[in-house]
Amino acid sequence: MASPFETAVGALRAPDEAAAAEARAHLDRLTKPPGSLGRLEDLAVQLAAICGMSPPPVPTPAAVAVFAGDHGVIAEGVTPWPQEVTAQMVANFCAGGAAINVLARQAGASVVVVDVGVAAELPDVPGLIRAKVAAGTANLAAGPAMTALEVAAALDVGATVAADLVAGGARCLVTGDMGIANTTPSAAVIAALTGRSAASVTGRGTGIDDDRLALKVGVIERALARVTTRSAYDVLAEVGGLEIAALAGFIVGGAAAGVPVIIDGVIAAAGLLAAASIAPGVLPSVIAGHRSVEPGATAVLEHLGLEPLLDLGLRLGEGTGAVLALPVVQAAARILGEMATFDSAGVTEK
Amino acid sequence: MASPFETAVGALRAPDEAAAAEARAHLDRLTKPPGSLGRLEDLAVQLAAICGMSPPPVPTPAAVAVFAGDHGVIAEGVTPWPQEVTAQMVANFCAGGAAINVLARQAGASVVVVDVGVAAELPDVPGLIRAKVAAGTANLAAGPAMTALEVAAALDVGATVAADLVAGGARCLVTGDMGIANTTPSAAVIAALTGRSAASVTGRGTGIDDDRLALKVGVIERALARVTTRSAYDVLAEVGGLEIAALAGFIVGGAAAGVPVIIDGVIAAAGLLAAASIAPGVLPSVIAGHRSVEPGATAVLEHLGLEPLLDLGLRLGEGTGAVLALPVVQAAARILGEMATFDSAGVTEK
Repeated sequence: MASPFETAVGALRAPDEAAAAEARAHLDRLTKPPGSLGRLEDLAVQLAAICGMSPPPVPTPAAVAVFAGDHGVIAEGVTPWPQEVTAQMVANFCAGGAAINVLARQAGASVVVVDVGVAAELPDVPGLIRAKVAAGTANLAAGPAMTALEVAAALDVGATVAADLVAGGARCLVTGDMGIANTTPSAAVIAALTGRSAASVTGRGTGIDDDRLALKVGVIERALARVTTRSAYDVLAEVGGLEIAALAGFIVGGAAAGVPVIIDGVIAAAGLLAAASIAPGVLPSVIAGHRSVEPGATAVLEHLGLEPLLDLGLRLGEGTGAVLALPVVQAAARILGEMATFDSAGVTEK
Repeated sequence: MASPFETAVGALRAPDEAAAAEARAHLDRLTKPPGSLGRLEDLAVQLAAICGMSPPPVPTPAAVAVFAGDHGVIAEGVTPWPQEVTAQMVANFCAGGAAINVLARQAGASVVVVDVGVAAELPDVPGLIRAKVAAGTANLAAGPAMTALEVAAALDVGATVAADLVAGGARCLVTGDMGIANTTPSAAVIAALTGRSAASVTGRGTGIDDDRLALKVGVIERALARVTTRSAYDVLAEVGGLEIAALAGFIVGGAAAGVPVIIDGVIAAAGLLAAASIAPGVLPSVIAGHRSVEPGATAVLEHLGLEPLLDLGLRLGEGTGAVLALPVVQAAARILGEMATFDSAGVTEK
């Protein structure tokens, strides 16, 4: 029997070109100079293609899924933050006090938190989906971060969460993440799957100094020396993370369900890169929300030909950059659905 | 007795540095790495300084004021659109069918339309503020666009609209504009007040071709040859527009009322430049919403040291770029007011 992730990969459909063409033609009938709404017009066409209708429904309600996991590579000293912060921040998310909660409230989106790999036993609280595959990854500096079975299970967690959210009414998915040290496996996955150097895709994460950055790059370089494949499954197992794999599954699951998926920063970018490597058909459903300060995020966007909607200097993760872009995405759909045409408004064309 | 505009200039207060410092200190106690929310953090501090308290109130409800005016310079052939479109678009705004209406609904903002200079008699409809100073400007290619009295009256219209909106409950103002041919006076005002060449600040507006662009630059250059002053009042009279002067008054009025004012594209930028020339104290209350495609807008932003929040390739005006930035501004205030601290959430600091 196909796994939830395999089922989602199999369910991906090509974008609806007829709906896209209808959207583009309608945009030129609206009361504005052609093209004058810039990227909103491209977004509107993309949404029509994703949903298979023009005008597309406004992508609301939206749901942010914050995938949380820990990382054995923390033993190498790649971050000054203690591992316990991952679990503490999960509690903060569930209590509604983190940045992603505040920004999701502003945007009218809901937040679910998914324990796919936190290295602590978490209590059963509202808003927390308990789907722990392992209590954190192994130290990728010393050997594979995950087994192939753990990768598959994490992909399934993500795909299942996406399917469940859409079944529950979500019409737009937003990627989120939490995991102390997770910019290290993200940079490693990005280097392995783009062929770029570790140094060029590794950033300061929460704000580490030059010495720690050099150490972090060295750890990633040594781990990458073991990676002799560009299979996304193998790369995830060797140097990835549970939340990164889950995000890959989540992106595929959202695309398979026919809803737009807004991508956050470098952790989500690593997940997207893995997802697109396995299933390139996800890309038409993906919207890059925000350009993270992390260089690995921009490397992925360039590699995949994506241009983010926002560039506000965020480097927090959690889904914060992506959810800030949600109103722009919703605005694009509304333009197609609600604006008057030259004919209907009695406005003279040039 | 002081005019509404003069009263507003006199009421400008310095930003509240104590509230700004309190906001900055509080941001570093919130559950996130310091600085990791990028420009949201600077915005939050700015809002605290504007409102004189930390956390600042969320700037809602917000009101967009679309100032409409016509331009005698249309006789020179600077645009392919007929003048009647200004009045038709005012009707479209009042009926709720234009892009600004759709985007304001998405952002939860209201829209008022102000006839400060439309070259047609407009009916008395809901949502339209009738404050016509003149039925369009004179042709700036042939002589002064406005008299000094018309400039003063338009500044007063803008200042009065701002004061009335804030008195009616608005906690954030958003600039909007409509006026066929109005990128021509805007470029002229910007060239005159920044000292830049007409060619460097003149754009394609609704999308004119090379020949018409050359004609437009030539018209502006010839008009600028008459401008021998950098007095904003004189520049507005010689080469400005009624809605540009009204926007200058509106920006001063909003700043004087202690609310943030989000600036749209090149027409608003011309108004802002005039406002800041007369009253530099407006600038701490100003937020640049979106980087218009028009080169004159970027010239003003550089001149005043402003960095826009969004860059989505819009070139429509009406307030569309600014209102798209409204959720980001509101998000910044919410971050200060709603996020948990390390202490309150029990999260370990590094």
